[in-house]
Parts: sequence; C-alpha cells; structure tokens
Amino acid sequence: MTNPANRRDVADLTPAAARARFRDGQLTTTSGWCAGWTQANVIALPRDLAFDFLLFAQRNPKPCPVLDVFEPGEVGGELLDGDIRTDVPAYRVYERGRLVAEPTDVRDRWREDLVTFLLGCSFTFEHPLQEAGIPVRHIDAGRNVPMYTTNRPCRPTQRLSGPLVVSMRAIPADRVADAVRITSRYPGVHGAPVQVGDPAGLGVEDLARPDFGDPPVIQEGDLPVFWACGVTPQAMVMATRPELAICHAPGHMLITDRRDLEYVVP
Amino acid sequence: MTNPANRRDVADLTPAAARARFRDGQLTTTSGWCAGWTQANVIALPRDLAFDFLLFAQRNPKPCPVLDVFEPGEVGGELLDGDIRTDVPAYRVYERGRLVAEPTDVRDRWREDLVTFLLGCSFTFEHPLQEAGIPVRHIDAGRNVPMYTTNRPCRPTQRLSGPLVVSMRAIPADRVADAVRITSRYPGVHGAPVQVGDPAGLGVEDLARPDFGDPPVIQEGDLPVFWACGVTPQAMVMATRPELAICHAPGHMLITDRRDLEYVVP
Repeated sequence: MTNPANRRDVADLTPAAARARFRDGQLTTTSGWCAGWTQANVIALPRDLAFDFLLFAQRNPKPCPVLDVFEPGEVGGELLDGDIRTDVPAYRVYERGRLVAEPTDVRDRWREDLVTFLLGCSFTFEHPLQEAGIPVRHIDAGRNVPMYTTNRPCRPTQRLSGPLVVSMRAIPADRVADAVRITSRYPGVHGAPVQVGDPAGLGVEDLARPDFGDPPVIQEGDLPVFWACGVTPQAMVMATRPELAICHAPGHMLITDRRDLEYVVP
Repeated sequence: MTNPANRRDVADLTPAAARARFRDGQLTTTSGWCAGWTQANVIALPRDLAFDFLLFAQRNPKPCPVLDVFEPGEVGGELLDGDIRTDVPAYRVYERGRLVAEPTDVRDRWREDLVTFLLGCSFTFEHPLQEAGIPVRHIDAGRNVPMYTTNRPCRPTQRLSGPLVVSMRAIPADRVADAVRITSRYPGVHGAPVQVGDPAGLGVEDLARPDFGDPPVIQEGDLPVFWACGVTPQAMVMATRPELAICHAPGHMLITDRRDLEYVVP
C-alpha cells in the first residue's frame, strides 16, 4: 500500500474531511496528510488487559506515548469526534497474536469490552522536519515509512512483553543534529531518536527489507536514524498472543482532532 | 507532625538508611531528607481499580506523574529495594473514602490484591531551588509543606474523580521566574507551577489554614506559588470512596532508590 498523496490537497484537509474519505473506503497511508494535526497509533484490547497495557505503555514511554484512552466500550473520545471502527484507513486484526485480517472497517469485529488506546506517532514531527529543510525521503517518494523490529526488549509487565519496533528516516549527515534537536521537542510523539547510524546494533540486518512499511529511500551521504515506533504494541501482540487485538495497519494512522502544537516542548 | 530535620545529617543519608529509620519507627516528614534522591507519593488500590487509577493518572499528569507501578501484590520494585508496607514514615488508610488510621506500618492492613503506584513529588525540585539560592521556607522553618484542595476538578475517568490538590511555596517576587524555569525542568515531578499569586483563583480562602501539612511561612515581598501535588489521589479517594486505599501521610514520602537527576529535562 503506497501513498499516492504527496500533494498539498491532502496536507490541507481537515481531520474530519480526511476521516470521511477513509470511511468511504480510500485506502492510503497517512504520512503527509492533514499538516499540523496529530496522527495516532491505535490499539484496542479486551478490558481484562487494559491495566497491563497501560502499564506497558507507562514503562515504555518512547515507543508507547499515550495520547488518550477511550472509556471501555467507547468508540470516540476527546481526540476523536468520530468512530474508531471506521475512521482509520486500514486496520490489522490479531487473534491470539496471529494477523487474521486487514480490513478497512472493523465494526463487525468490535466487542463491547474493548478499550482503545491512542499513542503518539512520529508523523507528527515530519512536518517540522520538512519546515526546517530536512528531507523526509519517504514522503518525497510517496511511500510508507520503513519500520524494523529490533533486538531490544521492551520493559515487560507480568503479562505483556515484546521487542522495540523503530521507524527509520535517512537523514543527510549534516542535518542529523538538527533532526535530533527538532524531534527532541516532541516527547509525546516518540521524541528524540533511539539510535543513529548503526542498524546492526539494533539487530537490523538489511535496511532494504523492513518488517513493516515500504523499503527506504537512502541517498549518498545519508545516515539511517531510528525513532521508537508506535507499531511496538503490535510486536507485543505477536509475542504475547492476547485473545483479540485491533490495531491500525502500520502507516495508516488515525488522524485526530488535536493540533500537533499541543505536543511541542518549548 | 513537624519536621525536626533541617540538618545535613538527614540530607546526606542514603535512601536505604533513611528507610531503615522509618521502619524502626522514626516519625518525620521527609522534605530535606536524602538530597538528590527521588521522593514519591504512594497510593495502593485494589486490582479492580488499577486500570481506572492509571488512566486517571494519565489524564492528570501534572498532579499524578507516574514514576512506577508495582506488579499486583508486590511490595517492592525497581524504585524500592525494600517493603512499601513498612518503609514510609507514616501512612493514611482510607476505607470507603474515610480516613480510618494513620499508622507507621500497614502490614496488618495489606491485601494481596493491592496495586501500588508511585507518583513524583515536588520535594525533588526543592534541592535545585535551594542550590539556585531560592529559599524554601518550609524547609528553613523545619515544617511540612502546606497543601490546599482547590476548586479545579481533575479530568475524571468513568469511576474516579476529584479536585486538584496543590502545594504552595512562598517565593520572593524577584525569584518567581527562576523558580518557574527551574521546576519546568522536572515534568516528572509536577513540573512548572499551575498558578502564581492568586489563591482565591484556586478557591483557597485562607493560606494560613492548609488542608494538609503545616501553615506556611510567608515573608514580605513573597508571592504564593502553587504546584500540582501528589496528594491529589487522596482527594480523589475521599470523593470517590473506593473500598480501600493505602497512601503515604502527606509530606511523609517514600524515599526511592532512584536519583533525581533521572527526572531532569536538559
């Protein structure tokens, strides 16, 4: 699923207008959409696991920065004047840790006891990177960001564990410091990189073959820079095998009604 | 319960040594103790409320900055190589929202299904304030910090709600900006003040009569500066009336094995 939309028209859409398109069936990644509005990772888990997951997030704030949690059974909340079951471009449904479907609507799979968590997404700081003149190569190429499962374990809870997942952006060597500085100002959406320049040190053997998203675009003189990624909960789901988990499809985020500016640290 | 200890000897104690004193029955507030080590607010609630409370904390990060959560039934964890039931100088036990005891040991009241939450405490930034030459008047006077229940509601969850509680420090007018700047660097322990200079605006009618702690020391030219306070969960307990809650007595904190430096934002 590549992103056809490196275009101002989708950058200028309101969240409600973008979500209406997704509800009507438009299938796209959301990088570059609705500039200035916060995008979110989504995971819905049975109420029985809600405490454990919120604790997992609290213990792993870089990959799992909690933006909001809907009340049990609710399908909207402060950050979404809409319906979480229809308003995301694509979903992944996991049963006992196995990916069983990737639908564009999950109303038929929803359960009353699901609790929905919204986690910050690094797409939030891509716009400020671009504004600073730092190329975001996957947006320029109309692709999804590449994501990799690492060899670093998250800090577990009694029932939940799994590896850290990272997103990668190839950054010109002379802009790496600026990228660190800019993204550090967004701790609520993964913040500063977890690592710069050493894929092997994260257990990533081949950058060309990401575990999620599209292959990267890397130019001469670029360094691979890795940020904690909100797909980490899906790696946890695969490792821990809860009865049911409904997530966004990687790169196909919820676009919230919250402004990015609210997550900037001055 | 006033603090007899504006003395270097308690400032220089290790957390383990201080906790040994509390275990042996020394009754004292902990402001000024173990300089450089993180102090924590404590609340233990039945497992059935653990998700709701963690969500309450996530929704109210200024008064309830979560430092750690012990696994259900555990009495120690990463921040405490000890026993939460004995290592705090004094506790408050609430049954259905009513304060029923203020013991120095809660082993006889403990239940296997309790989940313990540790929340950041503003005592952490008092040492940096002092280092910057800003007087912390309650320490200088050997008193507990004054705390007030405000007219501001916390953001509720389905089952938990209550008012914001604040601590107050009287700061010389020409050091207020410095106090804001310094404490802003500690978002994990309440961070910047929630309000400066207007007690009535918070619904505090008489500064001389705090709801918790000791009356304040205010000098000519001081402004009252208010920080979100980790006693907020106890106000929530009084408002929401859960079956059982075991908390620290206000000002009588858990001294953890974690360094303050880990909570500084550069």
